[in-house]
Amino acid sequence: MSSIDIVDLTAVSAIAAGTNKPSRRVVASGIGGKLMGSKEMTTVTAEQLAQDSINALLAKDRADRLKYSKSKHISEQPWTLSNWHDHINWLNLILVVFIPLSGFLSTIWVPVHSKTLILGFSLYVMSGLSITAGYHRLWSHKAYQARDPVKLIYALFGAGAVEGSIKWWGHSHRIHHRYTDTNRDPYDARKGFWYSHMGWMLQKPNPRYRARADISDLTDDWIVRVQHRHYIPIMLFMALILPTIISGYFWNDYLGGFVYAGILKYFVIQQATFCINSVAHWIGVQPFDDRRTPRDHFLTALLTFGEGYHNFHHEFPSDYRNALKWYQYDPTKHVIYLSSLVGLSYNLKTFSQNAIEQGILQQKQKKLDAEKLKLNWGTPLNELPVWTKDEFFQRSKEQKGLVIISGIVHDVANFIAEHPGGQPLIKASSGKDATTAFNGGVYIHSNAAHNLLATMRVAVIKDAVVNGNTYNLQMETLRKKNKSLDY
Amino acid sequence: MSSIDIVDLTAVSAIAAGTNKPSRRVVASGIGGKLMGSKEMTTVTAEQLAQDSINALLAKDRADRLKYSKSKHISEQPWTLSNWHDHINWLNLILVVFIPLSGFLSTIWVPVHSKTLILGFSLYVMSGLSITAGYHRLWSHKAYQARDPVKLIYALFGAGAVEGSIKWWGHSHRIHHRYTDTNRDPYDARKGFWYSHMGWMLQKPNPRYRARADISDLTDDWIVRVQHRHYIPIMLFMALILPTIISGYFWNDYLGGFVYAGILKYFVIQQATFCINSVAHWIGVQPFDDRRTPRDHFLTALLTFGEGYHNFHHEFPSDYRNALKWYQYDPTKHVIYLSSLVGLSYNLKTFSQNAIEQGILQQKQKKLDAEKLKLNWGTPLNELPVWTKDEFFQRSKEQKGLVIISGIVHDVANFIAEHPGGQPLIKASSGKDATTAFNGGVYIHSNAAHNLLATMRVAVIKDAVVNGNTYNLQMETLRKKNKSLDY
Ligand code: HEM
Ligand code: HEM
Ligand SMILES: [Fe+2]
Ligand SMILES: [Fe+2]
Ligand SMILES: [Fe+2]
Ligand SMILES: [Fe+2]
Repeated sequence: MSSIDIVDLTAVSAIAAGTNKPSRRVVASGIGGKLMGSKEMTTVTAEQLAQDSINALLAKDRADRLKYSKSKHISEQPWTLSNWHDHINWLNLILVVFIPLSGFLSTIWVPVHSKTLILGFSLYVMSGLSITAGYHRLWSHKAYQARDPVKLIYALFGAGAVEGSIKWWGHSHRIHHRYTDTNRDPYDARKGFWYSHMGWMLQKPNPRYRARADISDLTDDWIVRVQHRHYIPIMLFMALILPTIISGYFWNDYLGGFVYAGILKYFVIQQATFCINSVAHWIGVQPFDDRRTPRDHFLTALLTFGEGYHNFHHEFPSDYRNALKWYQYDPTKHVIYLSSLVGLSYNLKTFSQNAIEQGILQQKQKKLDAEKLKLNWGTPLNELPVWTKDEFFQRSKEQKGLVIISGIVHDVANFIAEHPGGQPLIKASSGKDATTAFNGGVYIHSNAAHNLLATMRVAVIKDAVVNGNTYNLQMETLRKKNKSLDY
Repeated sequence: MSSIDIVDLTAVSAIAAGTNKPSRRVVASGIGGKLMGSKEMTTVTAEQLAQDSINALLAKDRADRLKYSKSKHISEQPWTLSNWHDHINWLNLILVVFIPLSGFLSTIWVPVHSKTLILGFSLYVMSGLSITAGYHRLWSHKAYQARDPVKLIYALFGAGAVEGSIKWWGHSHRIHHRYTDTNRDPYDARKGFWYSHMGWMLQKPNPRYRARADISDLTDDWIVRVQHRHYIPIMLFMALILPTIISGYFWNDYLGGFVYAGILKYFVIQQATFCINSVAHWIGVQPFDDRRTPRDHFLTALLTFGEGYHNFHHEFPSDYRNALKWYQYDPTKHVIYLSSLVGLSYNLKTFSQNAIEQGILQQKQKKLDAEKLKLNWGTPLNELPVWTKDEFFQRSKEQKGLVIISGIVHDVANFIAEHPGGQPLIKASSGKDATTAFNGGVYIHSNAAHNLLATMRVAVIKDAVVNGNTYNLQMETLRKKNKSLDY
């Protein structure tokens, strides 16, 4: 007899991390490489990752703890007067805080030119959509494929959003999806709103929680490679220089172009994107899964060209849509769809409607189960004492209101005065077996009556035929006896 | 060993019908008795009813059919030119159609006096509330108790609604609740909108479907007795004579008082009440039970002083409320509650919040189950073929994409290109057991992934440990191994 191979976790972890095969090494050129350096976070072997699998995690965790108890990484040291500057990721701080701040200050004395505002807004739309349709859905999730002209536009204008290269962005994003709400999640929402919004990028990360995802498809893409290699100049040109030149050359507003259509434009896009990691993990509903933080909210979608249906997105990441209903705002989806109509994109991926509806129903079921737990459905049968018939007989002599229905003894004494069918009927059943009388023999009791009955359970009769679901019992009895009949 | 008595169906049916004890015979005096005569519908013994219980219904039905095949009751004969007048309940036809019709015609030449309209509206409110708070909730359902002054008002103004005596109304209403949506239901909604609205009262009923409910509590009530005995004069006085006298004596509008505050007022109340039997069984939602026709609708409630939450009411008939939410319109409930504050009513009955919420949750569950049935959840395990390990081994040689997860073989060939985690990972699992790899070993798959997986089932491995709910399997594995750990 041959035996079936079990998938080798080390080998598949290597595949998942992309370390199983020689892959291109793409680094940024010049000073950019040094500044952007996320190398420290990605030098991890497949073996290391495999050891992290559920079987080895505990051991590794202990080992790591030991290791860092001797020489602590900067991220594990407290902030002090002498080390605070080491904690900080200065490039990011300058790009996402200092420059935008100086931009805001300049608005005090830089006059606003309406043409500049229109240019700023256009660039905001172009760069924003390049992030959502390009960086995110195309490159990070392979939700569809696109032709080079479109990809070039996304790569250029995406750089203008000042959110890092496609390669870096896509890699962290894949890690975010794979390790959502864990320490390996770069924007771990459990660490608070501000951490997931910007905090994570302003301080140095803890290499104890490094991770790696396969991005060989990205490094195989010449556009991704070129963009990454020359990211800093491309970014500076697209984000700041281009709007400055246009505004200056055409309507002589160099400074306004720089401040409004350059700095403040990219600031708005950055913040919108950051909202996906913060707001979209904090505010909204969870129609598909509530074990993790992602949420659906119209407002987040409005800010982010439709990326706000984040609960859906985490469940169906490679769907080119983030929203399905006509009233949900997802312009990125329309851009992708329209570009496919003219042949600029193709292979648009969607999850089956079946899978999507399954998720919704399961989530509804989960909520319903939680609500059910709050109510009294009667003592479970296996927790009830067992009485012999003799015992029931004896007790019934001493105590009024014990009624057997479906092998279960009920104490209906307190209900006699409440019975909508009147007191005499219940009194006549006291000390007796009223299974048939209750279940349609005299009156077809409603659902509510069966629920009430269950809350009055006190014992089970030994060796009796017991059916805790008296409602179903009644339905079956009626079906059997009543068939073609209508009384 | 003593044996437990089983409730005697004949005896309890007698109790339910009120035929187990001598009970007062209350008949209308004079010509009223002859005209109102519902005697034919209620001369049925407890034994007859008990035979109708689920055990004997079929036999009785056959016997009845035989009986009426010889001499048919008028209701079973076709309408012909020579017998149509026998089909009709003339008293009802005159009271609910002819008189109102003549009232409408008179409006052409009878001028409208504003004081008469105000009187008409006041009487409409008084008589309407007397039906809902008195006839219905107090007498028919014993949802609370009231002191004689209040009961007298309800008996008098209720008669002014021209809907029959309390005794007759309460009896048919109890039968309606006991036999809802069956042939014994006087206003059986299954027979169409018009039948349940007015049709049922304009033709003679079929005695094959006679029924009886215990109304000894009603015949024990002197107010009910007096009202029934002298119903016709009380009705004529309250409905027509009183408004005529008031309008004539105080503002000299005898004719207007008769037409507007008399005929048309009672017509509106009648129609509103009829709507409970028609509209409230046709239009609206069913939050508590959808096996039968009653429905909740705001508009029906608006027409009927709050009786439109009829789905609730059929489920919880002896609750003095028909609506629970603050935004639902149920003025009758407020009238009852206010009268209890000043001691005019007492013993207000309510069903427990627990029972009410149980009903809502069960109904939601039912809808969810129905929606679930529409989706593909994968072939049930017991319908799958069983393969030995050797069989799997052989087939895997011929066919790519067979993956074992949790003892179940899945054909993932068509999904390889769709896999959001990439093709290589699934390909590496082909022909192997990927239980651990799939269930968190490499990646913690979402709910959606487990649903998709189930739809790809093709076989079960012989003697393997099988768990069809791979999602739960993953959760348990994670819980066990992961415990205090967060990776
Ligand atoms: C022992 C526990 C019992 C419970 C909790 C119970 C509960 C109820 C409830 C909630 C109703 C209101 C209508 C409905 O929900 O269907 C009702 C009505 C009724 N019950 Fe019971 N019941 C019990 C026992 C019995 C027995 C033993 C009999 C007969 C022998 C009986 C005969 C009736 C009848 C005839 C009505 C109809 C009242 C009407 O609408 O005229 N019940 N019961
Ligand atoms: C055989 C049936 C499989 C199905 C139906 C399936 C389904 C999915 C789905 C729907 C996702 C999207 C994210 C999610 O829903 O959690 C996903 C992602 C993923 N799957 Fe699978 N999968 C299968 C097999 C595997 C196997 C055998 C492995 C590993 C050996 C694997 C590794 C992954 C990884 C690493 C991701 C994460 C992608 C990312 O976000 O970076 N899958 N899979
Ligand atoms: Fe996210
Ligand atoms: Fe994403
Ligand atoms: Fe009804
Ligand atoms: Fe009722």
